[in-house]
Amino acid sequence: MGSPSAMPYAQDIDACLAETVGAGGIGRDALDGALARLARPLARLRAARAESTLPLLAVPARTDDLAGIEDAAARLRQSVADIVVLGTGGSSLGGATLAALGTDAAAPRLHFLDNVDPDGFEQALAGLDPARTGALVVSKSGTTAETVAQALVLLPRLAAAGKDALAARAIVISDPAGTVTPIRRLAAHYGIPVMDHEPGIGGRFAALTNVGLLPAAIAGLDVGAVREGAVEALAMTLEAPSPAEAPAALGAALAVGLAEEAGIAATVLMPYLDRLAPLALWYRQLWAESLGKDGHGTTPNAARGTVDQHSQLQLWLAGPRDKMFTLILGAPEGTGPAIDTAPAGGDGLDYLAGRTMGDLLAAEQRATAETLARAGRPVRLLRVARAEERSLGALMMHFMLETILAADLLGVDPFDQPAVEEGKRLARDYLARMGAEPGKVEAP
Amino acid sequence: MGSPSAMPYAQDIDACLAETVGAGGIGRDALDGALARLARPLARLRAARAESTLPLLAVPARTDDLAGIEDAAARLRQSVADIVVLGTGGSSLGGATLAALGTDAAAPRLHFLDNVDPDGFEQALAGLDPARTGALVVSKSGTTAETVAQALVLLPRLAAAGKDALAARAIVISDPAGTVTPIRRLAAHYGIPVMDHEPGIGGRFAALTNVGLLPAAIAGLDVGAVREGAVEALAMTLEAPSPAEAPAALGAALAVGLAEEAGIAATVLMPYLDRLAPLALWYRQLWAESLGKDGHGTTPNAARGTVDQHSQLQLWLAGPRDKMFTLILGAPEGTGPAIDTAPAGGDGLDYLAGRTMGDLLAAEQRATAETLARAGRPVRLLRVARAEERSLGALMMHFMLETILAADLLGVDPFDQPAVEEGKRLARDYLARMGAEPGKVEAP
Repeated sequence: MGSPSAMPYAQDIDACLAETVGAGGIGRDALDGALARLARPLARLRAARAESTLPLLAVPARTDDLAGIEDAAARLRQSVADIVVLGTGGSSLGGATLAALGTDAAAPRLHFLDNVDPDGFEQALAGLDPARTGALVVSKSGTTAETVAQALVLLPRLAAAGKDALAARAIVISDPAGTVTPIRRLAAHYGIPVMDHEPGIGGRFAALTNVGLLPAAIAGLDVGAVREGAVEALAMTLEAPSPAEAPAALGAALAVGLAEEAGIAATVLMPYLDRLAPLALWYRQLWAESLGKDGHGTTPNAARGTVDQHSQLQLWLAGPRDKMFTLILGAPEGTGPAIDTAPAGGDGLDYLAGRTMGDLLAAEQRATAETLARAGRPVRLLRVARAEERSLGALMMHFMLETILAADLLGVDPFDQPAVEEGKRLARDYLARMGAEPGKVEAP
Repeated sequence: MGSPSAMPYAQDIDACLAETVGAGGIGRDALDGALARLARPLARLRAARAESTLPLLAVPARTDDLAGIEDAAARLRQSVADIVVLGTGGSSLGGATLAALGTDAAAPRLHFLDNVDPDGFEQALAGLDPARTGALVVSKSGTTAETVAQALVLLPRLAAAGKDALAARAIVISDPAGTVTPIRRLAAHYGIPVMDHEPGIGGRFAALTNVGLLPAAIAGLDVGAVREGAVEALAMTLEAPSPAEAPAALGAALAVGLAEEAGIAATVLMPYLDRLAPLALWYRQLWAESLGKDGHGTTPNAARGTVDQHSQLQLWLAGPRDKMFTLILGAPEGTGPAIDTAPAGGDGLDYLAGRTMGDLLAAEQRATAETLARAGRPVRLLRVARAEERSLGALMMHFMLETILAADLLGVDPFDQPAVEEGKRLARDYLARMGAEPGKVEAP
């Protein structure tokens, strides 16, 4: 595996192996067995890419839609100070993850509202000038109850304010027309342009489509570079000479192998770079919804370094041996502000004297990886040179491939989520029944 | 169990019982057994409160320190627009959880910086005017590497700006003098006033001391009401006629009983009110660091309603039966903006017509609880009338007691965290070794 500068990320799995961390790791035989089972799924993915039968594999190499995304972003950027993004789950997490990379002070502030608590909703809107606020409404189905309700409250307020028509300050992303959904009718009512949600790609696999890239472009990111990183990640896995050299196959084999062989029930994803922190929340949906079926699926935990050293590390080191760790490490050595220990007298601070804040972060991430391994806990390292478009696009593609391959090993369909339908139906039933008793919901 | 208006919260455990949810729940005998084992720990807690031998039990009823906290908050509020809170883990999560309740538009903005990623650190400071920015530095030990490094970078910048001396814009909270720590020397250097951290209370149990209440007071909360809610929660558990009627004992018996009898490896805390969402992160540290030792400890998961219905619910319903759920439910029926479905044409939206956003939230939280129970997953409900000081103070006290009682059932010490010391030592070693090779840290 080369250096992070040659590739957008590098994976190191040594501390997941039994030969390194003992019984908490996976044996070579078990790992090789899982990898062998991935040869055919990898071949199928290669064929699907070549024959364009799995749309999410075709997205990274696309460039035809970038101008449209950038134009839409430019239009919103020039007319508003704030943009409220309405959407939930896969309609929100990818965009929020990408937008968190943004450092463009001239960009509108993005507010991702993904809940229907009226207190939180009104508080988020309280500081915004409706005349200078735009909206991005994302719902693949066009019928998501929370998003429809949010839009029905927000859009009339925005439409009533400002000299520009709402049509100039808002965009909707939803499945291509055909059935006329509430979200499409709402867009038509206000004359809001609608961009098509890629029809063959579910929300949690849509981060590299307009669903994720439009917020990214609004935040000032180079969306082409995001795609390029994803293209590299696709190649790293699909063009590898063997499953053992395909990073996403290795990750899937480890995750499923450790669950089957070493009692691993949970995965922990812990980025050490603040701007990659939301990636753990995006990953959490991807892994949980794709694999959590038929009694399968390890539980994804979103963590953050260095913070969770002071919150979760005690449990990770001394609690049950039921977790696999993935640390996302940067290369912050020598970066950031220099630490002058003089105002604190220096005593007991030799370790900080002459260092930078980045040096401390580098030492902390290394120490955590080492401590977990010494405690016999399987820990995988994903190294990036920095938090930037290329590395984030690559990591997102990596995790999508890893999830699809893990689903193959488990024998589940990564693209559906059948269990959540009952809850949606029940919620509508309860709302309907409120008609009889206005304003009242019985306790369950 | 009375209504939430009579008590600051109400607990409903019916859907944790095998008689309700089947084999995924706990049998009456197992629950009664765990409760019986809690009679003596409860008696010890009652004695500790009466004899003032466990400081955290004495905090809720204290009023002598409130004026000092409110004065310090008033002093900071009048001189700054922004306050940067430096601290990590227990020095940050409690304050952040309480401050999230705040709705006072006149309050300074609080920025909780708990990591040492220089990119994230500089980005958080980039928008702030150093002349109108204050600092609250929290480190119980006075030696926390991350917090010391943050303070050594931030305080000189703030001191160099503004006409008011830094002493008027900053406060340090740290263990009482005795050993002269780096943080205390730094405070002395700038003349910053130091408030004592309660010496007998560790960070994760300190939310109701000045560690949590000073940020709360800065955010405009009624800190006396936070304490009053905690007093009520203490009484609900310690003055209950039997363990089965003591909410925190019941919660501890369920959590440990389900782990022992029903294979529960993880707990999920899912508040449905946005302003209570950070409570799940505070709880995550409390539960993990207190119980994660000697191979014990279920893994706490922080979730958020309704969002995680679109991210985690599929796994929760159809994945492994290894989780216990705690939903924190509000009473949002009839609250919030009315939903007018006319702009969307009404078709297919009967269920929303004439409802409020709060009605939808009420239906969603009820539907999720019901769906989990129907799938045979143990789910506990904690109901509050609203997200406010009294209910949050009570929930925090509830979880502290529940955690201490669970530790007793597991036979672990809830107040230490011995496993994390090696990582701290290693990080200092790596930093020290950088001296030989400046700016370079070898890969682990």
